[in-house]
Amino acid sequence: MTYSLSSLWDITEICTQKGLRHTVLSPGSRCAPLVHGFTNHPKMKCFTITDERSAGFIAMGIAQQIRKPVVLVCTSGTAGINYFSAVAEAFYQDVPLLILTADRPPELLDQQDGQTIQQREIYGKHVRKSFQLPDDFSHPDKIWHTERIVNEAINLSLEFPPKPVHINIPIREPFYPKETTKISYKKEVKLIEKENFETVLDKSVVQKLQNKLQKFEKIVIIAGQDFQNIKLCELLSDLEIPVISDIISNTHSISNRIQHQDFILLNDNFREKIGQPDLLITFGKSVISKNLKLAFRKYPPHEHWHIQKDGYVADTFQSLTKVIPTSEWYFFKNVFIRETTSEIKVKRKNYLKIWTNQETKFKTLFPDFFEKFKFSESEIIYETLRQLPTNSNLHLANSMTVRYANVFNFLNRSKPIENIEVFANRGTSGIDGSTSTAVGHSLVSDKLNILITGDLAFFYDRNAFWNRYKLVNLRIILLNNHGGGIFTMIPGPDVIEKSTAYFLTPQPHQARLLCKDFGIDYQIAKTKTEFFDKLEGLFLPSNSPKLLECETNFEDNQIIWKALKIKAQSFN
Amino acid sequence: MTYSLSSLWDITEICTQKGLRHTVLSPGSRCAPLVHGFTNHPKMKCFTITDERSAGFIAMGIAQQIRKPVVLVCTSGTAGINYFSAVAEAFYQDVPLLILTADRPPELLDQQDGQTIQQREIYGKHVRKSFQLPDDFSHPDKIWHTERIVNEAINLSLEFPPKPVHINIPIREPFYPKETTKISYKKEVKLIEKENFETVLDKSVVQKLQNKLQKFEKIVIIAGQDFQNIKLCELLSDLEIPVISDIISNTHSISNRIQHQDFILLNDNFREKIGQPDLLITFGKSVISKNLKLAFRKYPPHEHWHIQKDGYVADTFQSLTKVIPTSEWYFFKNVFIRETTSEIKVKRKNYLKIWTNQETKFKTLFPDFFEKFKFSESEIIYETLRQLPTNSNLHLANSMTVRYANVFNFLNRSKPIENIEVFANRGTSGIDGSTSTAVGHSLVSDKLNILITGDLAFFYDRNAFWNRYKLVNLRIILLNNHGGGIFTMIPGPDVIEKSTAYFLTPQPHQARLLCKDFGIDYQIAKTKTEFFDKLEGLFLPSNSPKLLECETNFEDNQIIWKALKIKAQSFN
Repeated sequence: MTYSLSSLWDITEICTQKGLRHTVLSPGSRCAPLVHGFTNHPKMKCFTITDERSAGFIAMGIAQQIRKPVVLVCTSGTAGINYFSAVAEAFYQDVPLLILTADRPPELLDQQDGQTIQQREIYGKHVRKSFQLPDDFSHPDKIWHTERIVNEAINLSLEFPPKPVHINIPIREPFYPKETTKISYKKEVKLIEKENFETVLDKSVVQKLQNKLQKFEKIVIIAGQDFQNIKLCELLSDLEIPVISDIISNTHSISNRIQHQDFILLNDNFREKIGQPDLLITFGKSVISKNLKLAFRKYPPHEHWHIQKDGYVADTFQSLTKVIPTSEWYFFKNVFIRETTSEIKVKRKNYLKIWTNQETKFKTLFPDFFEKFKFSESEIIYETLRQLPTNSNLHLANSMTVRYANVFNFLNRSKPIENIEVFANRGTSGIDGSTSTAVGHSLVSDKLNILITGDLAFFYDRNAFWNRYKLVNLRIILLNNHGGGIFTMIPGPDVIEKSTAYFLTPQPHQARLLCKDFGIDYQIAKTKTEFFDKLEGLFLPSNSPKLLECETNFEDNQIIWKALKIKAQSFN
Repeated sequence: MTYSLSSLWDITEICTQKGLRHTVLSPGSRCAPLVHGFTNHPKMKCFTITDERSAGFIAMGIAQQIRKPVVLVCTSGTAGINYFSAVAEAFYQDVPLLILTADRPPELLDQQDGQTIQQREIYGKHVRKSFQLPDDFSHPDKIWHTERIVNEAINLSLEFPPKPVHINIPIREPFYPKETTKISYKKEVKLIEKENFETVLDKSVVQKLQNKLQKFEKIVIIAGQDFQNIKLCELLSDLEIPVISDIISNTHSISNRIQHQDFILLNDNFREKIGQPDLLITFGKSVISKNLKLAFRKYPPHEHWHIQKDGYVADTFQSLTKVIPTSEWYFFKNVFIRETTSEIKVKRKNYLKIWTNQETKFKTLFPDFFEKFKFSESEIIYETLRQLPTNSNLHLANSMTVRYANVFNFLNRSKPIENIEVFANRGTSGIDGSTSTAVGHSLVSDKLNILITGDLAFFYDRNAFWNRYKLVNLRIILLNNHGGGIFTMIPGPDVIEKSTAYFLTPQPHQARLLCKDFGIDYQIAKTKTEFFDKLEGLFLPSNSPKLLECETNFEDNQIIWKALKIKAQSFN
């Protein structure tokens, strides 16, 4: 029996030998051997989080921060189900997780035993693969099988693009060793290493692409969500091509980048002037800007190349003509050439100018634009992003927050822009784990982690704070409009009066008591003056997390948002 | 286009014509046409709950209370995932739900659009069936298909045993009608009624069973989890057969019932005296008592008949020999006969006496037993169940609460026992939705709803209170031992010191601030005197929900629990 316990303990050994260092645990009875194995290993850092929904997002935040898979361990039953929304987010956001769910042995399923559900394949299509571990270790092949599965799972999680992988682990009693048995790990666990690969293109392919590239006049590059890659940004800064840079693409250090696409594309004249690009080049994951999608669906590019090393490719703009299976770095370094005729060079420059001119028009609106309006979420976001400390992580919650931030972007910043990395759960765009994700980052990052969130997302995920860790580097700006402003910002619900109460999901809460409960420094701003007074202090070092609640009226928010839209539509 | 909207609105019409009256909504953009349809229908009562995890359990609580399917409506993406733990609980607890998840149309899946995941079959094996609605209504057959699916889904949810059923609904823009279009419902929607059936047994089968029954001397009946059925209890009260009645079986009005099985079966002499029954008869769903399961696994009955009208049958005691596919009422009314020889009658009486004698020994321990111990969870549960108002619903959270309650059961009650119905999420035994389930009951029941819960379950599900409804008939007894007492109550974790911190999941919170935040009357009891003083007042009418936080030390809890176990083991 101890034989089987030691096989379960050795899972930790394999994980650490394969370089994994972080585990998020939600203890229970059935997963005790795993908890025992993980918490005792000197190379593994463990965090205990009771609410598995929060645990899942915290693990994802850690994985984003450390750029490695994080292990999740939970007990049997609905525990693993509560990971699911984080698993789906990680799946669509390409974050590696190793999910270990303890289970009853198969003969006890559907026998009305406690904490027993059908856990195999529980995450459906939202993991790269779901494994089932053997339920005993009586034959030596079962040990080999177990060790092979753990290796395979970790390797698969790291394949490009990284994804969550699930191992369901049936565990029999006894869960605990005899008092005399000390936990130990087998040094010579099986290891299957997987080497990295780079995808390169055939010379003839490169030649063919370059022949085409030389002739394109109107080229647009769109960067989707990704981690920050300063060297790539430098490379792209050299091109005289508009790079449309959603805030979550982390390409804000590119010079001549286009950052206000969501609003400048509201202008019909401008959209016409841009017309159908000859070539659209995309890379990265999702983009936020709806107007960007609509613009290129209306004026589709003649060709659309998507750069992606491997994996399933989305046709976000409904115009995809070519998939180039290599890295962005390889493509822009080795394939994309600027040598072309001087005539085309001029045309490209002029095309870039159309874009940058429109950007400039939008930029000149600020900061004066806010002066004649009341305190609003727009101004809060504009000002926060402007004053955001360099060398920090910015976390943007769904659903309005990330849209606001993508409109203003890093406009008129007073401080350098480098080393601000932006995170948002845009894989599934749920409101269910934005705070927990930021908490995950705070647990393993020395940087300041600044979360901007709406009240619905904030209160939804309030269990993010229900843990024993001191998040001294976490700062929260809470946009409290008391519920559901988004449904008044998008067209529609005003025509269905009877249902309005249901759409707005009004909620009267402030965060004061919650902050007191969880040891978070709390301040509130109900006016511009209060906000400006308190914002700078928010970023100062502290012994506890801090929250600045900004209470606004959602009608005021709506007024300024609409005014800004009208203004953007009317540029000439 | 309005054509398609009206088809979506008519889903509500079908639901109401089929008798459904309650919907729990979690609004979003994509599900707007459904929200519009459900909230405007005069026969449908809608509740808005923002956190879908809580919404799922609230819907389940309502469905338990009204004994009909409840509709759940959510938007696309992870919203539906958050229902999952409630869906699994409803599946294993046989509660009918109609889950409507809005989805993007199929061509937009995996295109990096917001709030888009793979929603088809998302609940795996935890629904009776998962349907996909057409994504347009261009052909008349699609309307027929839609209406047929909604009928089928409701019919399937009500088949015995009732189960959740899922309909995934792709919805295209526009989500809202033109301003001139008023919502309307088609009266002549398609209706497919399904008649109820009763399963009866062939005369020859009845004869065969009765021939056997006459000869059995040692018969034990075990009632699993079920709703209260007073008439069945009356029927069973007449038998001189021990009926082992877990608290969640709601058979507490049976005279001569055995209610302390979990502790009296710890006694080896007693277990030997009971020996192997000739016949074990079971009905209902899960039983809590682990010692009961172990006892009959060690001394398996010679025959074990399980009474269940239809559906998958669990072999909880690993001794099942016969499934009798009819209702308990039919079986005990028409099959079970007491006519037998006087010799056997005497033997049966003596056998019953062995059981009742042991019960009496346990009963005589109380209330004196508590005197020499400190304030403990055991005493709180004993006293609460003793004083519980008649005509109320008792909700027991996982994981220790329900075990405590099952040990003490309705011992030495000062008030009548009738019309107390007991609910507990013993389908999956998760801690994730106990409070929300109780909230669901409170929303539709005039009775007092009393929830007893531990601190982990309570804080886990704190979003249960994040809604705008006044739960004046909700009462909560919070057993706060500051985290994870259960792992010290079950054997094991004390041998693995290094991990203790991880198993105990200590958490320092009290409920005071949370109660203030949510408008719940708050009181705290830290001593026996305080508890006794405040308990009675807790049950008095009020304009707001009330919570009594009982702070105990988990070592004290452990001491009394172990002492009680030793006492129970040592009876002679």
